[in-house]
Amino acid sequence: MFFFNWHDVFNEVLPTCFSHFSPTVFPTISHINNVLILDIKALEAIVFDFDGVLTDNRVWVDQQGNESVCCNRSDGLGFDVLRKTSVKLYILSTETNPVVMQRGKKLKVPVHQGVKNKVHSLQTLAQDASFDLDKTLFVGNDLNDYGAMQLCGFSACPADSHPQILEVATISLKKDGGQGIVRELVEQVFEINMLEFLK
Amino acid sequence: MFFFNWHDVFNEVLPTCFSHFSPTVFPTISHINNVLILDIKALEAIVFDFDGVLTDNRVWVDQQGNESVCCNRSDGLGFDVLRKTSVKLYILSTETNPVVMQRGKKLKVPVHQGVKNKVHSLQTLAQDASFDLDKTLFVGNDLNDYGAMQLCGFSACPADSHPQILEVATISLKKDGGQGIVRELVEQVFEINMLEFLK
Amino acid sequence: MFFFNWHDVFNEVLPTCFSHFSPTVFPTISHINNVLILDIKALEAIVFDFDGVLTDNRVWVDQQGNESVCCNRSDGLGFDVLRKTSVKLYILSTETNPVVMQRGKKLKVPVHQGVKNKVHSLQTLAQDASFDLDKTLFVGNDLNDYGAMQLCGFSACPADSHPQILEVATISLKKDGGQGIVRELVEQVFEINMLEFLK
Amino acid sequence: MFFFNWHDVFNEVLPTCFSHFSPTVFPTISHINNVLILDIKALEAIVFDFDGVLTDNRVWVDQQGNESVCCNRSDGLGFDVLRKTSVKLYILSTETNPVVMQRGKKLKVPVHQGVKNKVHSLQTLAQDASFDLDKTLFVGNDLNDYGAMQLCGFSACPADSHPQILEVATISLKKDGGQGIVRELVEQVFEINMLEFLK
Repeated sequence: MFFFNWHDVFNEVLPTCFSHFSPTVFPTISHINNVLILDIKALEAIVFDFDGVLTDNRVWVDQQGNESVCCNRSDGLGFDVLRKTSVKLYILSTETNPVVMQRGKKLKVPVHQGVKNKVHSLQTLAQDASFDLDKTLFVGNDLNDYGAMQLCGFSACPADSHPQILEVATISLKKDGGQGIVRELVEQVFEINMLEFLK
Repeated sequence: MFFFNWHDVFNEVLPTCFSHFSPTVFPTISHINNVLILDIKALEAIVFDFDGVLTDNRVWVDQQGNESVCCNRSDGLGFDVLRKTSVKLYILSTETNPVVMQRGKKLKVPVHQGVKNKVHSLQTLAQDASFDLDKTLFVGNDLNDYGAMQLCGFSACPADSHPQILEVATISLKKDGGQGIVRELVEQVFEINMLEFLK
Repeated sequence: MFFFNWHDVFNEVLPTCFSHFSPTVFPTISHINNVLILDIKALEAIVFDFDGVLTDNRVWVDQQGNESVCCNRSDGLGFDVLRKTSVKLYILSTETNPVVMQRGKKLKVPVHQGVKNKVHSLQTLAQDASFDLDKTLFVGNDLNDYGAMQLCGFSACPADSHPQILEVATISLKKDGGQGIVRELVEQVFEINMLEFLK
Repeated sequence: MFFFNWHDVFNEVLPTCFSHFSPTVFPTISHINNVLILDIKALEAIVFDFDGVLTDNRVWVDQQGNESVCCNRSDGLGFDVLRKTSVKLYILSTETNPVVMQRGKKLKVPVHQGVKNKVHSLQTLAQDASFDLDKTLFVGNDLNDYGAMQLCGFSACPADSHPQILEVATISLKKDGGQGIVRELVEQVFEINMLEFLK
């Protein structure tokens, strides 16, 4: 668990004075051409916030109060690849909403929702499912993800996240929420050759 | 109640000749770096128009005439914070539509809809609920909000509001309608530290 | 009925050689600062295409084949004003779709749909409802509106219309389809003071 | 069947050293002012991927798990024209989803969905329906279309396709998926005069 500002370390400190760090400190993450590369083999779990990460943070409400959210087909292919690795996958949402369960079912990713305190939930989940939070990547976008972002060894956020989330995230993604965040992780951050996996 | 042009006062007059005003005239609002700061403690009520403020002013219509509107999840967190203050919150809408009621229910904010004349409705509401319109912030976007914007002591509008609404609003927000207007009010205008509230 | 290119006349010919035209030729339309002003008193009818004019030309399709389209609330206020004038209003659509009927019902504008040939339909409609096509404004966006645009005395189109429609339209609007076309007509083209009408 | 990079051939090699190629090698495709023109008479079939081509690659999910996708009305007119030619039309989708069938029904284009391997499916389809894959245009956008793009004699992709798809496509379209891809093919690539067809 790290409590200093990852964003500054990777984007400010590391590029300018890389020689002062021992390369063994960050064995699984590297900083090449301003793009962070993370070795997926170093991860035991990836936990995704739902709204604003797998969706564009908008919600459609109809006259019966039925809610809809807007996701991206390209993330489906991304999860197809992630499920072929040994990394545990979860969706963790503050909202208690059938729509999260429906999307999780489609993506074949287990959903934990109605979560009031994501830090406590993550700690319980990690204990129950036997994974190490230091080897966990949390992907969130808003202030209710703040504690979870700092609790996990690694954190990522969409480009349109809250400024305070962008500040503490290990990895700031280029895409906005709901525009294919999972695909960017798979192809740009984990550098997985999708064509090999899809064969 | 003020009938001169607030927009001009705050954006044209105040910045250029601030010394000519006594600071005691505006005890609750200040103009720092072109951003208006409003002390929420000075408010007794905030009244929100619905379409174009809590939505992007679009409406989806299906074959059965069922309407849907597009809202923003980030506003939900904003209302969570506002409900922890003593300020009274209302949604006031010209439309008579179950969709407004459904969104109000989700946000836990009382809804007054089917309102033909917002000025009369506001006056009745203020009397019934015992709040002072001079200490009320009205948030609207289109010409049917014009009278209400001028009736209340303070008014705010999204960036994509009607030009004549932008002209009379005390506070012109940076975000468009449905893009997180409530959050901008909470974090930028009222300067509330959300992380403290979410703890 | 005019068969030459209106677009060229108003945007190319008129501004550069206005003196060669007798002002009495266009008594109801004027060209001020590159904006066309049309006197609504000169019109007997306005006929709107639906998709791409009152919507953004997109259609949402669900698993049951139920279609939804995306309209703009601001057009609702625009029709409130137009219905207070003596001008006849119609929606004319090639699509045979309950969604058009539902939107027309909400806007209180009669709908003629399933129209294979808009020119024939307009001619029948003008005869039945006793209005003069030379004093009619047709608003369309795509090639199936081409004949109707040329048949009517006046024609308007959204900014994102088909290039060949932009070429023949009397009036090229600044807004895209579904972004408030009716409001732009009412406020910019007819120069109606909405605040007076809403009193 | 071609296994070299079409994109490079047409956009890099051909424009700079056109004289080194015999014009008889590409009798049906020409490169004028950086726009590729393809003679539709040279085609026996056009096969469309669904998500990201006829839609914008997004999916709306509601609380019952009912999915909706966003299509473009202008493509409807495009298919009206294509159906008047002798070219066979198909939609081929990896997703098994009633929404694809519903859209295909509306466009009157046969749908093959739940396709795990598009290359095998295309080969079977070409044999069953007796068309030549060398005279087939495949339109796709993502990596699960990669093999199909290379299998067919011609391939096209929307402007917002995956970088590796943009690289192998014969024709890179100007529009994004769901913004009227079929219309761009009909009017810009096949250079069909729509007004003649709509008469």
